[in-house]
Amino acid sequence: MPPRPILLDCDPGHDDAVAMLLAWGSPAIDLVGVTTVAGNQTLEKVTANALALARVAGIAGVPFAKGADCPLVGPQLIPAEIHGESGLDGPRLPGPGADLDPRHAVDLIADTVRGHASGEVTLVATGALTNLALFARTHPDLVGRVAGVTLMGGAHHGGNMTPAAEFNILADPEAAAIVFDASWPVTMVGLDVTHKVLATPERMEQIARVGTDVAGFVAELVDFFGQAYKAERRYPGPPMHDPLAVAAVADPSVLATVAAPVRVETRGEYTRGMTVVDLRRTWDVAGGEPSILGVADDYENMSMHRVGVDVDVDGFWHMLIDALTRIGNTHFR
Amino acid sequence: MPPRPILLDCDPGHDDAVAMLLAWGSPAIDLVGVTTVAGNQTLEKVTANALALARVAGIAGVPFAKGADCPLVGPQLIPAEIHGESGLDGPRLPGPGADLDPRHAVDLIADTVRGHASGEVTLVATGALTNLALFARTHPDLVGRVAGVTLMGGAHHGGNMTPAAEFNILADPEAAAIVFDASWPVTMVGLDVTHKVLATPERMEQIARVGTDVAGFVAELVDFFGQAYKAERRYPGPPMHDPLAVAAVADPSVLATVAAPVRVETRGEYTRGMTVVDLRRTWDVAGGEPSILGVADDYENMSMHRVGVDVDVDGFWHMLIDALTRIGNTHFR
Amino acid sequence: MPPRPILLDCDPGHDDAVAMLLAWGSPAIDLVGVTTVAGNQTLEKVTANALALARVAGIAGVPFAKGADCPLVGPQLIPAEIHGESGLDGPRLPGPGADLDPRHAVDLIADTVRGHASGEVTLVATGALTNLALFARTHPDLVGRVAGVTLMGGAHHGGNMTPAAEFNILADPEAAAIVFDASWPVTMVGLDVTHKVLATPERMEQIARVGTDVAGFVAELVDFFGQAYKAERRYPGPPMHDPLAVAAVADPSVLATVAAPVRVETRGEYTRGMTVVDLRRTWDVAGGEPSILGVADDYENMSMHRVGVDVDVDGFWHMLIDALTRIGNTHFR
Amino acid sequence: MPPRPILLDCDPGHDDAVAMLLAWGSPAIDLVGVTTVAGNQTLEKVTANALALARVAGIAGVPFAKGADCPLVGPQLIPAEIHGESGLDGPRLPGPGADLDPRHAVDLIADTVRGHASGEVTLVATGALTNLALFARTHPDLVGRVAGVTLMGGAHHGGNMTPAAEFNILADPEAAAIVFDASWPVTMVGLDVTHKVLATPERMEQIARVGTDVAGFVAELVDFFGQAYKAERRYPGPPMHDPLAVAAVADPSVLATVAAPVRVETRGEYTRGMTVVDLRRTWDVAGGEPSILGVADDYENMSMHRVGVDVDVDGFWHMLIDALTRIGNTHFR
Repeated sequence: MPPRPILLDCDPGHDDAVAMLLAWGSPAIDLVGVTTVAGNQTLEKVTANALALARVAGIAGVPFAKGADCPLVGPQLIPAEIHGESGLDGPRLPGPGADLDPRHAVDLIADTVRGHASGEVTLVATGALTNLALFARTHPDLVGRVAGVTLMGGAHHGGNMTPAAEFNILADPEAAAIVFDASWPVTMVGLDVTHKVLATPERMEQIARVGTDVAGFVAELVDFFGQAYKAERRYPGPPMHDPLAVAAVADPSVLATVAAPVRVETRGEYTRGMTVVDLRRTWDVAGGEPSILGVADDYENMSMHRVGVDVDVDGFWHMLIDALTRIGNTHFR
Repeated sequence: MPPRPILLDCDPGHDDAVAMLLAWGSPAIDLVGVTTVAGNQTLEKVTANALALARVAGIAGVPFAKGADCPLVGPQLIPAEIHGESGLDGPRLPGPGADLDPRHAVDLIADTVRGHASGEVTLVATGALTNLALFARTHPDLVGRVAGVTLMGGAHHGGNMTPAAEFNILADPEAAAIVFDASWPVTMVGLDVTHKVLATPERMEQIARVGTDVAGFVAELVDFFGQAYKAERRYPGPPMHDPLAVAAVADPSVLATVAAPVRVETRGEYTRGMTVVDLRRTWDVAGGEPSILGVADDYENMSMHRVGVDVDVDGFWHMLIDALTRIGNTHFR
Repeated sequence: MPPRPILLDCDPGHDDAVAMLLAWGSPAIDLVGVTTVAGNQTLEKVTANALALARVAGIAGVPFAKGADCPLVGPQLIPAEIHGESGLDGPRLPGPGADLDPRHAVDLIADTVRGHASGEVTLVATGALTNLALFARTHPDLVGRVAGVTLMGGAHHGGNMTPAAEFNILADPEAAAIVFDASWPVTMVGLDVTHKVLATPERMEQIARVGTDVAGFVAELVDFFGQAYKAERRYPGPPMHDPLAVAAVADPSVLATVAAPVRVETRGEYTRGMTVVDLRRTWDVAGGEPSILGVADDYENMSMHRVGVDVDVDGFWHMLIDALTRIGNTHFR
Repeated sequence: MPPRPILLDCDPGHDDAVAMLLAWGSPAIDLVGVTTVAGNQTLEKVTANALALARVAGIAGVPFAKGADCPLVGPQLIPAEIHGESGLDGPRLPGPGADLDPRHAVDLIADTVRGHASGEVTLVATGALTNLALFARTHPDLVGRVAGVTLMGGAHHGGNMTPAAEFNILADPEAAAIVFDASWPVTMVGLDVTHKVLATPERMEQIARVGTDVAGFVAELVDFFGQAYKAERRYPGPPMHDPLAVAAVADPSVLATVAAPVRVETRGEYTRGMTVVDLRRTWDVAGGEPSILGVADDYENMSMHRVGVDVDVDGFWHMLIDALTRIGNTHFR
């Protein structure tokens, strides 16, 4: 099977950085473009981070374009307590490894989708969904050519920024509503599954054994990124949110999903930015225990949305280690 | 330990009916009043049902009073597809077994709380929270005398009437907001736990073995109540929502809870009536698996709200069978 | 024509104070009860103010009862910048002139309505509508016995606390929604008309000529109350909000109204607490100039709500001066 | 003074049609582009109408481009009861008088703004604000080059589609929020002023005296457009909503405005799509009569928003008749 072409829309961001490394190193993925969006930090900072990551990973021949500098409606939320002042605090970053494409992210997405066969390009979003929403509304004729959107964001059970909302969705709820409403298939990789993929000390030992400068860089990212999770939540390691979205495209068997309609709450007093997933038809009560993994027969095809409910944790880490091994030493410093 | 005095605020309703039988039959409970509220059917119908249940159970010496005939704000939702036209479709009902107390429910609650020592009476609510909200706002001086409110309603994960909202909360979200905001302890018995207590054929066989007319009445209730759950959700039996709230007072060990702040969303487009539970401090990721059962040490005392997260299913059924056995034959027909 | 019995529900408050004086002094009004509600200040303070006003005005034989100490939902807003720390800053207040009735405001309202013929008692509300809402929801059978509710609150065009919301409605939007939704006629005396009745220096000269201690007290009230309006809005005198509601009952010809449905917005981001008045059927475009005073023929009887649109300013001041003259000197100090 | 270059973003629509004629015929306006947006009818229909109007008016050398086919969030509202099935019911339309530009409306706007000096081009919007919002969010660097946005939409007092919301804003509230939030000056020409400019029989007689085929076309538009206003509201003629926005650019003295911040409500239950205008600082109470025309000295420069509050009705009609006279006969049929 040939590698799947993906365009990565991101706001690096520690876990975005790992996602980009995974996308570049995975033999199952053909990274055909990178676009940036204001999110974990300002657009300028996350774009500079993306270009630095091109050097870290040795990415070549891939256009990088910057996109929206604020959400559709309302002010930008910047989670500096998680990603630091630079958006990628922790490791010392090299200079840019790629030139910035002069096109706007929306135009790069459009050109990329137009330049591939219909149904070929998957959009992987690991930040606020502003760029994808602008693309859908300015290029409705291209929406049907996209293979699908796989996004890290939301949850079917609880949030992180608020009790009900996850950061990427809360960062631009109106954009998220547009993305879930557009006529392309959406796979939601939410906190329910990303919180199962923690970069624990044991996992980081495995990463260390790769022994390259890039693997060392990942260790530095995880060190910083893990601090807030440890202090606030007693997590033994930070969740690998964004890489899991890439992994789910590289090998769909890594992520168990159910078909379930998702709507984005934009108005609630306590729920703005929540992904409201209708799981009522997916409960299997055999044995007296409701489980979201059992699904009514006729339901699978009813929704354009699939929601991650479980993850092959070992499979994910195997994929990441393999990607880092393939990248090797890039001598980026 | 002497039985705990409870006042049952309800809208019978099939599971309310079983809750009333459990409250009357349980040796751990002293049923000191019953109040009704518009909910599963109109106030007139649920009040007539409550009085008929007094005859079914042989309840004597307990005042029954009717309360609010509509939600605080907005129209009443009547789930006739679940409880039928009478609110208690299925079994043939006897005539009333008690006279209606002339007091309004709010006044009966006030007199009951005033007539017991401070901290003695628990309010158990198995319907919309309109009466309790009106009580809290018209008698703020008595709120502190209530031992606590244990309510069937809400969920920390998903709803039944809508993807995000459970019926009793959606039936009067503003009242629910008032009840969770008042300065009494609230224990929320939500769908997360009630959906684990299903009246399966195996459980109903156990009930049948009690061999009384009242047990037969319960079987008829469950037969009707189970139909919608079977058709819509493929449940092997209907959930015992309301009785679980009574059970949690009779023996708190039946219900595992965590301390977590609960807010009621009144405004959302897709989330009105949702109980927004903040579980972010209660995740235990030891072993890589988030679990709501592990709780930060200092968190237990931070909230007036406890949320049911697990249930001793066998313990519940044992308690119900014991209560029905104690009630015996009432020769109500 | 015999005087009309009114129960005044208020939160004194400078303009509430003048409203009470008008109600007591007007020969067209029979003041049958006064109830208080948290609003311009805490319940304790506004209740103390109401009792002091009984002495100022020489009110006798009228029960005073206190009611709700907070809004139905959400925290109390206290506009201390308008009414000061006491809620009635400016004049030195005497001690209480009446004993507090032991009944809750809601019970006093109920007893008063029950104790008069159906359709006799008008409820005049000059504060947050919490008490009236609680009355409507706990005594639905008495709602139909009330002649009507005349309330100072809202506007059909703009607000004061926010661009869209007037204080009394914003102070408890859910209560306002209940009051406008109940099956009694409601007359809304909003900012559109109260801002036309300003206590200018010229008007205050007329008041001064009454020459009594009570008229002097009114001058002291207006002095303080006018400061914020002068500084913030360049008004030549403060609006006589609350007295206009009493005046509209004493002599309906003082207030021009149109029939128009009113709904209370409880959810908006910028509009919570707004009275949304549907004036679309009331525009008269004769002569090319839309005017809200022309009303479609069949529309007058379609709504339970009448909305004040114009005021007989001279008529109002004549009525107030007459009332103060009738009260005379009370030697309250 | 040279004519002002404007780009007209519209959804013809009867009054949009008159607006386009005014823009083309007015010597004070240089029409540099026309873009279409879904609104009064589907994008396909309003675009076809715009191209037909090019032939009616004899417009040449002006690019026409189509834009958004749906609102940012939520479904399109189509007011077929006002504008008919075609969006321009009434007159028989000719074939297209221009080719459709291949660019998306957003790109045409961007190219037009870039192609003129900074501060030269005014965007006049007479439909939903979707295109302008997409332009602002995809080209933030060009926002500062726009002279300003003059839009027909909203009101400071009441709506038409709902009691609180005007159609163009309700058609895409999120887009409107973006447009009012962007850092360009916005002049709002709302119902408050457009309802003062009615195409009464007397005014239509003046139009008829122009005696051209285009003037006859305008008469046919007004005939159809006036029906709903007459039946629903007893208006003697339909309001000239959209042309007034063009007129306000051609000759600002036609429209009296005040500086006042405008926010768009996107969430309310009864107020979604309302333009919330803060007029609290603009009340002049000299003479006891509040008036929105008096403005605090220091307030004029505080807001990027100016709101129309009065109109020179005769001046408007003179301008329209002049424009039609200049267009002359186009022999479009």
